[in-house]
Amino acid sequence: METKYRTHTCGELRISDVNKDVILCGWVQKTRNMGGVIFVDLRDRYGITQLVSENDPSVFARETVIQITGHVQERESKNKNLPTGDIEVVLSDVIKILNSSITPPFTIEDETDGGDELRMKYRYLDLRRNIVRKNLELRHRLAIETRNYLDKLHFLEVETPVLIKSTPEGARDFVVPSRMHKGEFYALPQSPQTFKQLLMVSGFDRYYQIVKCFRDEDLRADRQPEFTQIDCEMSFVEQEDILNTFEGLVKHLFKTVKGVDIPELSRMTHADAMKYYGNDKPDTRFEMKFVELKNSEPDSPLLWRGAGGEAFKLFAEAELVVGICAKGAAEYTRKQLDELTEFVKRPQIGATGLIYARHNADGTIKSSVDKFYNEEELKKWSVAFNSQPGDLILILAGTADKARKALSELRLEMGTRLGLRDKNKFSCLWVIDFPLLEWNDGDPNVLASLAGRWHAKHHPFTSPKPEDIDLLNSSPGEVCANAYDMVINGVEIGGGSIRIHDKKLQAKMFEILGFTKEEAQNQFGFLMNAFEYGAPPHGGLAFGFDRLCSLFGGSDGIRDFIAFPKNNAGRDVMIDSPSAISDEQLNELHILVKKENHA
Amino acid sequence: METKYRTHTCGELRISDVNKDVILCGWVQKTRNMGGVIFVDLRDRYGITQLVSENDPSVFARETVIQITGHVQERESKNKNLPTGDIEVVLSDVIKILNSSITPPFTIEDETDGGDELRMKYRYLDLRRNIVRKNLELRHRLAIETRNYLDKLHFLEVETPVLIKSTPEGARDFVVPSRMHKGEFYALPQSPQTFKQLLMVSGFDRYYQIVKCFRDEDLRADRQPEFTQIDCEMSFVEQEDILNTFEGLVKHLFKTVKGVDIPELSRMTHADAMKYYGNDKPDTRFEMKFVELKNSEPDSPLLWRGAGGEAFKLFAEAELVVGICAKGAAEYTRKQLDELTEFVKRPQIGATGLIYARHNADGTIKSSVDKFYNEEELKKWSVAFNSQPGDLILILAGTADKARKALSELRLEMGTRLGLRDKNKFSCLWVIDFPLLEWNDGDPNVLASLAGRWHAKHHPFTSPKPEDIDLLNSSPGEVCANAYDMVINGVEIGGGSIRIHDKKLQAKMFEILGFTKEEAQNQFGFLMNAFEYGAPPHGGLAFGFDRLCSLFGGSDGIRDFIAFPKNNAGRDVMIDSPSAISDEQLNELHILVKKENHA
Repeated sequence: METKYRTHTCGELRISDVNKDVILCGWVQKTRNMGGVIFVDLRDRYGITQLVSENDPSVFARETVIQITGHVQERESKNKNLPTGDIEVVLSDVIKILNSSITPPFTIEDETDGGDELRMKYRYLDLRRNIVRKNLELRHRLAIETRNYLDKLHFLEVETPVLIKSTPEGARDFVVPSRMHKGEFYALPQSPQTFKQLLMVSGFDRYYQIVKCFRDEDLRADRQPEFTQIDCEMSFVEQEDILNTFEGLVKHLFKTVKGVDIPELSRMTHADAMKYYGNDKPDTRFEMKFVELKNSEPDSPLLWRGAGGEAFKLFAEAELVVGICAKGAAEYTRKQLDELTEFVKRPQIGATGLIYARHNADGTIKSSVDKFYNEEELKKWSVAFNSQPGDLILILAGTADKARKALSELRLEMGTRLGLRDKNKFSCLWVIDFPLLEWNDGDPNVLASLAGRWHAKHHPFTSPKPEDIDLLNSSPGEVCANAYDMVINGVEIGGGSIRIHDKKLQAKMFEILGFTKEEAQNQFGFLMNAFEYGAPPHGGLAFGFDRLCSLFGGSDGIRDFIAFPKNNAGRDVMIDSPSAISDEQLNELHILVKKENHA
Repeated sequence: METKYRTHTCGELRISDVNKDVILCGWVQKTRNMGGVIFVDLRDRYGITQLVSENDPSVFARETVIQITGHVQERESKNKNLPTGDIEVVLSDVIKILNSSITPPFTIEDETDGGDELRMKYRYLDLRRNIVRKNLELRHRLAIETRNYLDKLHFLEVETPVLIKSTPEGARDFVVPSRMHKGEFYALPQSPQTFKQLLMVSGFDRYYQIVKCFRDEDLRADRQPEFTQIDCEMSFVEQEDILNTFEGLVKHLFKTVKGVDIPELSRMTHADAMKYYGNDKPDTRFEMKFVELKNSEPDSPLLWRGAGGEAFKLFAEAELVVGICAKGAAEYTRKQLDELTEFVKRPQIGATGLIYARHNADGTIKSSVDKFYNEEELKKWSVAFNSQPGDLILILAGTADKARKALSELRLEMGTRLGLRDKNKFSCLWVIDFPLLEWNDGDPNVLASLAGRWHAKHHPFTSPKPEDIDLLNSSPGEVCANAYDMVINGVEIGGGSIRIHDKKLQAKMFEILGFTKEEAQNQFGFLMNAFEYGAPPHGGLAFGFDRLCSLFGGSDGIRDFIAFPKNNAGRDVMIDSPSAISDEQLNELHILVKKENHA
């Protein structure tokens, strides 16, 4: 790391370097004036070295960049917490100020006083903070190890184009007006899906790319308009091959980056995930599975019926009565139970109320619906929930979808409250057998013209399971796909599928999705044509790299794992983008900004 | 490489596998029907395996994808040119057609009958050809080795944003209309320049990224609207550190990817490159340096003067008389000399004529201007050019810029004709000390409004040499920069500079480039503000990755080293992009396509 400017970095000197003359460069982190002698923490990316100086303290203003020459000596009081803590550097007179600093708008420390907006505006200062830089170092390490693993398995990294064609059948595209072709536009890829499939048609056999993708969505906390995927595809494979290969990748990453051995991934069908966790990405760090007291199946359990058949009205009218057993929560106070009730009644969750039954330490069971259920009936609940003295049973009722969704949120909340969601514990699983299609009755993230149609759950290139192809016409909603998600700690880290490689089936799929023949040919003709020239069976998946990084970094948000993220309005507040462009530019691009919005 | 579909690839079986039962998948490359027995070349990415079958030959139509089971046996007549040439696979009855193929529009062979346009339209078939796939495998290998080298030197790979802000001070930007912010646009980066500098301000110290960049230029053969850079930046460095680090990278790539040891890179100033090669990216695989018979310096050589001071008019009126000595070309026929004259008179070169002097085998010298120059004077030319019997001296005259440019083209042409430009020989050098600025008197690749101004030769962030800062006001054109290009075989492979890290100097630079204070603040305020918080001295460079790949692949064009390139009109003819988008999309983006162009 020696350059013309320095002999060592600030993280490098050890006791074995004592008596060396060194030149260091770095930022003044802090100073301690001990009456005539000043101790300075000099910081760079590699660490902190203590300097000892008798110089004028004003030289050492915070965040000033200095170059010093000095002599390494052993410290009297060593700092065991610093790798350089055994030594200090006694400065000669030569202190060169390489650049001064005005006072930063927030403190450059792990614990900063800077708010989110301020940190984003001065992201270049925020990135100086150890904890933020460490996140990006982690990201680098994950990328390197991903490449190492895939390279060894003969995956070829191939760059696919960024300026492609708009095919807004999923989310909205970002588009780029063409100067050379008036009235025409490129689009930025939502994923390199069709290109990686073409590479399979080309015989590339194993492809990967760590690649930027783009989606013009209304943003949420963990979404960015541009995001990064580990994008992969393989030929001559069945689902099993893909699951094994990428289970291997994730094990390799945990092993090399975190030093953790993770066990073989369990597998759960999408149907089971919905039934037992109300969620297609269940957090399986803890059990707390759903138990149904009533459902819409012919053999529905009858546990919801009250004494003598006199049912609690809420349960009687509900499509689904479903609950969880929170271990050791029977002692919850009235206030805590009220909080939980408020939690499930929030508009974004939308339950009408929460029923509970305490399994008391003395073995008795006390519920909020004692009016309708006697002790004997509650005992049956206890058996169904496998509750033990000390447990708390929580029950929701309503339409199946809403009740499951609400109970899933409540389950996660209880997991958090009971300390069952340890960020240092990792539970990885495959969710498999996803439905091929879902009905779109108006999704704000897709064009309005696509509402009232079947929508591909994964994407239009996913193959139905061969045994379900006959259902495509009669019951599209029941068709299953060889589609799979990797879920870690309740986060969808990756997903993929076996693809269609037959032109006729692909055409059928577009028909079901509501494309006219012309639209399908216009947007995806190149792919269907390619399938006529010996397309091999193939499949693949993509990992959300930003999320993978945040998971490894023990964080809920992806933003601090992206060097220069955008805010929730899709704006880069540091460079102030998006922004207006000149009339000269608009003119050359043959476009006008509309005066009024006739939306 | 075993999957549910195959036990081996088509490149894997050897004599040691004889007697194994195997399952292979691949494409039918070709068949030879030997009366009852058919030999089939089965191809995949890994190689070709010979199959022996007694099946119906119609199964083996070209490019059909099949899965076969068979038994490995030793070949009677081995093929030494194939790694699998010692064995063949005798097929069982089970031949599964995985997908059929209609007749491809061109032959899938190294030597194809497909023209450029057809190959691009069916790029997925073109990519099946060995030589094209090998190019992309080379690209993968170069990327991996680049990362290995930089990772070992503690460079961090950091992803910078793709949706940034339009700052069209160099080439034109591609822009992206914002749906959420009416009338505002993102721009795609021409390079991550400002972001990598901000990372230096953040203390990242060593950054790299293999990254897509975008320039909305009128295209040439070796340009693409999107291209890939190896982008690097370092802090606390002088030019020398950067040159050494990246000379090391290129040596590492030559060593690991091509097995070639390249010697230490020579260095040439920009002034010398122009004087001796008429070109800032000289092809130094061969010498043939320029010799000036007259120039505009006070001590100009007088060799252009004719007998008794009676000068040849063309030379007398020229600003520069300059030539090269082509070794061993004295035997060139009249026809060959006429061809050279036609070559330099082509409009894109624009010389008015070509003067030559043959240094004959008998030692006499015979020129096309014998009328003006006697044998004694021509002998002086011979001394100046260091010509030997058998050499041909070629001379051009005119304004300095035009004569140098034309002679540079002629020099390269002679190098090619004399076989001095061997694609397997590599001559690498640094061109250093570039001028900071150049005058823009109307460049078609930048906005018209920027003509009639000083233009940054490298970019506006390049630092003038400290000793030249005083010239910024008085003689901007004479200011030199610590800017450097790496040139290999006459191709600019990379370039960079030491950057400005002082706010005032950066502001001064924008002023010289014709920015108002407001424009500078509006476009680059974030960077200048960042310089106030302890910006370290830094510099870096970027390699053109597409060009590097084509150089390593021994090709002149970059297109075959890009999986899905665009044509010279910026169009992807395979997917047919750019293309029209729907009114619904335009409406959401608050833009209209202009009815008429009021340019």
